[in-house]
Amino acid sequence: MTATASTAIGQRSLGDPSLLFPLARPLLTGCPATSTEEMQYPLEIDYDYAKVPRDIFAQPPLPGLARWAPLLPPLVPELSMGEGGTALIESEAIGRWLGLDLPVWLKDESRNPTWSHKDRLNYCIVSTAVKTGAPGIAVASTGNHGAAAAAYARRAGLPCVVISTRDAQPAFVHLQAALGSTFLQVEGSARWPTLRRIIEETGFMPASNLTRFHTGNPFGPEGYKTIAYEIFAQLGRELPGTVVLPTGYGEMLFGVHKGFRELKRLGLTHRVPRLLSAEPIVRAPLARAMAQNVAAAEVSGPASIAAGIACTVSSYRAAVALRESGGRPLTFHDDVLREAATRLAHEGLWQEFSGVAGLAALHEAVRRGEAIEEPVVVVLTSTGLKEMPAVVPPPPAEPVSLDDLIAALKRGAGA
Amino acid sequence: MTATASTAIGQRSLGDPSLLFPLARPLLTGCPATSTEEMQYPLEIDYDYAKVPRDIFAQPPLPGLARWAPLLPPLVPELSMGEGGTALIESEAIGRWLGLDLPVWLKDESRNPTWSHKDRLNYCIVSTAVKTGAPGIAVASTGNHGAAAAAYARRAGLPCVVISTRDAQPAFVHLQAALGSTFLQVEGSARWPTLRRIIEETGFMPASNLTRFHTGNPFGPEGYKTIAYEIFAQLGRELPGTVVLPTGYGEMLFGVHKGFRELKRLGLTHRVPRLLSAEPIVRAPLARAMAQNVAAAEVSGPASIAAGIACTVSSYRAAVALRESGGRPLTFHDDVLREAATRLAHEGLWQEFSGVAGLAALHEAVRRGEAIEEPVVVVLTSTGLKEMPAVVPPPPAEPVSLDDLIAALKRGAGA
Repeated sequence: MTATASTAIGQRSLGDPSLLFPLARPLLTGCPATSTEEMQYPLEIDYDYAKVPRDIFAQPPLPGLARWAPLLPPLVPELSMGEGGTALIESEAIGRWLGLDLPVWLKDESRNPTWSHKDRLNYCIVSTAVKTGAPGIAVASTGNHGAAAAAYARRAGLPCVVISTRDAQPAFVHLQAALGSTFLQVEGSARWPTLRRIIEETGFMPASNLTRFHTGNPFGPEGYKTIAYEIFAQLGRELPGTVVLPTGYGEMLFGVHKGFRELKRLGLTHRVPRLLSAEPIVRAPLARAMAQNVAAAEVSGPASIAAGIACTVSSYRAAVALRESGGRPLTFHDDVLREAATRLAHEGLWQEFSGVAGLAALHEAVRRGEAIEEPVVVVLTSTGLKEMPAVVPPPPAEPVSLDDLIAALKRGAGA
Repeated sequence: MTATASTAIGQRSLGDPSLLFPLARPLLTGCPATSTEEMQYPLEIDYDYAKVPRDIFAQPPLPGLARWAPLLPPLVPELSMGEGGTALIESEAIGRWLGLDLPVWLKDESRNPTWSHKDRLNYCIVSTAVKTGAPGIAVASTGNHGAAAAAYARRAGLPCVVISTRDAQPAFVHLQAALGSTFLQVEGSARWPTLRRIIEETGFMPASNLTRFHTGNPFGPEGYKTIAYEIFAQLGRELPGTVVLPTGYGEMLFGVHKGFRELKRLGLTHRVPRLLSAEPIVRAPLARAMAQNVAAAEVSGPASIAAGIACTVSSYRAAVALRESGGRPLTFHDDVLREAATRLAHEGLWQEFSGVAGLAALHEAVRRGEAIEEPVVVVLTSTGLKEMPAVVPPPPAEPVSLDDLIAALKRGAGA
């Protein structure tokens, strides 16, 4: 891994990109200058791009985000758990199911240290907490995000409070117990007030958002840029036409777009791929914001089986990513999501429902006749092991006879 | 990935290495010439090493085993799910806990397609099934092995029968349901007879062993050689002093040793690392075989929380790996295994109990005063998500008050 230092120069406002705030004091409630009661604007990390060694893009996309250090916030190398470097898998069968002309590329983020994309985000956040002397980490999450935050915090020797809900998946309850975090299961409505109080009274660094419209921790989404760097390397220094991503608050969407934007800025490419967001149709605040041409939107709506991304508010950074990339928001129905998860499992890859949102949304878009620029990369975000979906039936209590089974296997094999 | 073809020339007997059998008919019940009622000898795949392009070891250790095709059995490239290329993580804290002088290197095999090392084995087995026209795959497994076999079989479009026990972990029940395999939960004593009958009557290829002493599918362990290739590349074309591996039937132990042996044979290195096997002390058939200087041993003994590797018979290939590498068998107690899992989770890495066997065994060996050649690589094999250990307590039913919690966090942070 390269020992080159970060070239980060400050926190830049997305509300007014002329505003640059120093790195030293992380701005955790959005841009202080441009945010209002009505709208809150996130910040991003800016870099001295002239100082970025171009040859970091000549390296193979192996695990360990510190290899991209010049284009990330200051990292603590010892905190790395070999995050990133995830497989990109070509699938003809899924491409056919989607209705594409070419095979689709699947970026499997379940190959990360806590088996989701959130490790990229939380490595950056916890590094920032260590660098700035935060006494701990606090996160509101029912799942992947809390798992990754707790793992990196524990590795850093920082206490971590995870504020979850009473219906948290057993896998996460056990994971948090194993990591030794303080795991709170509270009523849904109490999550954000609880998080805010803990942050205010302890000075812990939030890995979660503290504003009405999502602004979040500006250091986190930088980690997702490495997905773009890896895709570029894995496709042989070529770009896909389109990248489709499961989208909740849009941190990954923005990070991946920013990664591609940087490749262009640094002269390695001449365009950026179109980014398509995938939200459950029952809520889909980003789709609403784009349709109304506003910075962000708040919606209400029933739950989705895509629990990890069924958000009720969007973020300005998500809208920026779609607009700048020439992309657009997609939505999906839960029944198509179930079918996508099943189709993918039948290719050997088992993801939680939120993880296959990109496949479901793309399937619906192609069925509607929308043009899709190929080749397409779909990002898969987390293992099916974290979710025990009620729709997957347990094996029959009444076992079939071995004679009947063997006869059936022979018929099947002969068919 | 390289498109270079396999240089495999046949199945060579470990019982009598002068015996070479053709590749075309996989020998699935051990060496037919040297096995007796008393002892069964496995086979391994042999290669035309003169034809192996040396430059395959100049490539970065990225995911996708087909990149090592010249040194693997004939593979079906489209079956690959980007297995391998797993992270190697340096840990000072775990090195200190182990009592080593140097940081330890952790090879995290939970970053594979079905989140265990078994994907490397089953990619090779299912490729062989496809190449030889087997009508399906049958496997006796309560866990990781069955998960990987079922995933690759499904991807290949082959039916897969998984013969498990009634106490199978829920994670595996759900995974098998998602993959759509035929999942049988039978009494422990019925597993092997059931497997044998299915194999005999359907012609399905076994991914499991069919003999008293373990011989198994000779094509599978070849996949584990890539762990050795990757370690060599990840350490900057250097060898570790020692590699410690969770050991059940010893297929990974043999495969990893063979990989190092090949690096030496091909002139890339001048020695092989010592391999140390890690078995639960309650059974430990390999340790028994080594102590008695016999080819393999059968033992009885109580269960271990390391369910995936608590075997009652060993294999001759495991003894070969230890003897040829100058290694030795280690054992561990369940209480040390629990401590190892907890220590590792506190470094952010959560494994199932079997997955940390190497850490527990090494810890005990150092405490006994055994000399360990450093640097040491410990192979971790599978995610903690697959196991919901009863010893991990759920969060308290009686929630603490937020006031008390915040006070405690402040005290902790100030300490």
